Amino acid sequence: MTTTDETTRNGVDTATLFATLDAVKAAPEAAKFQFRSSTEWVTGTHSRGTIHGFFGVGEERTHERSFTFDADHPAVLVGQDNGPTPVEFVLHALASCLTAGLANIAAARKVRLTEVRCTVAGDIDLNGILGLNPAVRNGYQDITVRFTVRGDAPADKLRELVEQSRERSAVYDVITGRVPVSIEVTTD
Amino acid sequence: MTTTDETTRNGVDTATLFATLDAVKAAPEAAKFQFRSSTEWVTGTHSRGTIHGFFGVGEERTHERSFTFDADHPAVLVGQDNGPTPVEFVLHALASCLTAGLANIAAARKVRLTEVRCTVAGDIDLNGILGLNPAVRNGYQDITVRFTVRGDAPADKLRELVEQSRERSAVYDVITGRVPVSIEVTTD
Repeated sequence: MTTTDETTRNGVDTATLFATLDAVKAAPEAAKFQFRSSTEWVTGTHSRGTIHGFFGVGEERTHERSFTFDADHPAVLVGQDNGPTPVEFVLHALASCLTAGLANIAAARKVRLTEVRCTVAGDIDLNGILGLNPAVRNGYQDITVRFTVRGDAPADKLRELVEQSRERSAVYDVITGRVPVSIEVTTD
Repeated sequence: MTTTDETTRNGVDTATLFATLDAVKAAPEAAKFQFRSSTEWVTGTHSRGTIHGFFGVGEERTHERSFTFDADHPAVLVGQDNGPTPVEFVLHALASCLTAGLANIAAARKVRLTEVRCTVAGDIDLNGILGLNPAVRNGYQDITVRFTVRGDAPADKLRELVEQSRERSAVYDVITGRVPVSIEVTTD
């Protein structure tokens, strides 16, 4: 095996991962990031969002390419189904965050994963957003995540990896905690 | 003008919108939806999520097509930049939710919009998810939404539309409120 093979596990370059951790320990300011998305209304409930630039490790950066995603409502919700609903993107964000964390944590703990699947389901009562029942919240009432994880470790160890991923997940924290959101409007 | 022209505003068929509201008023159970995303780990921080089926108005449904989105970390976060980070999808979800709501509300209130742009920025200190500072949360510390809205109404009215969209936004509620999330793990 080459050096790369020895330090790369689950597709994660653990040498770089640990070096990044050491670099942030030495210079905590490097960990201050700002992520952004820019959305343009198309028509009706259809909009198009672009993700490209971000700030991190002390400077403005860009993804290697610009990512563009349409969002819409399905016909049953008076849209044209040009993309997922906004609330579905939240579920995708949660699943991908927990999955990425799991792969990183498994790599750091020397567990080789062979399969990870994650399904997320969110229950929502649209009487909230439709303004028909003030006792119903606008957002999800609950979200259930179901993981299937396989790798070269006992079941208990694999469950610990998922638990640690939950413990350190940014999107899990956004959904289960409260994030202050401010809104500014320009009309001219 | 045809009947369609009279009831369609901002690309929103307001007749259908109001009919949907009446239908839900008559049968509140119809508003119980479940949305889902299914994610498969690819390698490292790279995963692929699929959004297709959902439940609503009393039955299982599917989007007209299956939507697939890759998520990853950029190189500076030890990934390969095959997609946005999970936390960026959260910002996209917020912008698209507020924008869709704005178009619907404007249509219902007989305001014709000519332009809507929405940029969302989220500040996050990765000392949280890296486990380097227990005082730092994992998720965004704050999120700022900036709207540019133009249409055939005075500035105050346009601002009211944005405020009402915030008031009825599912994703805004998920981010600013707390949603319970349960996680189940299968390992065999």
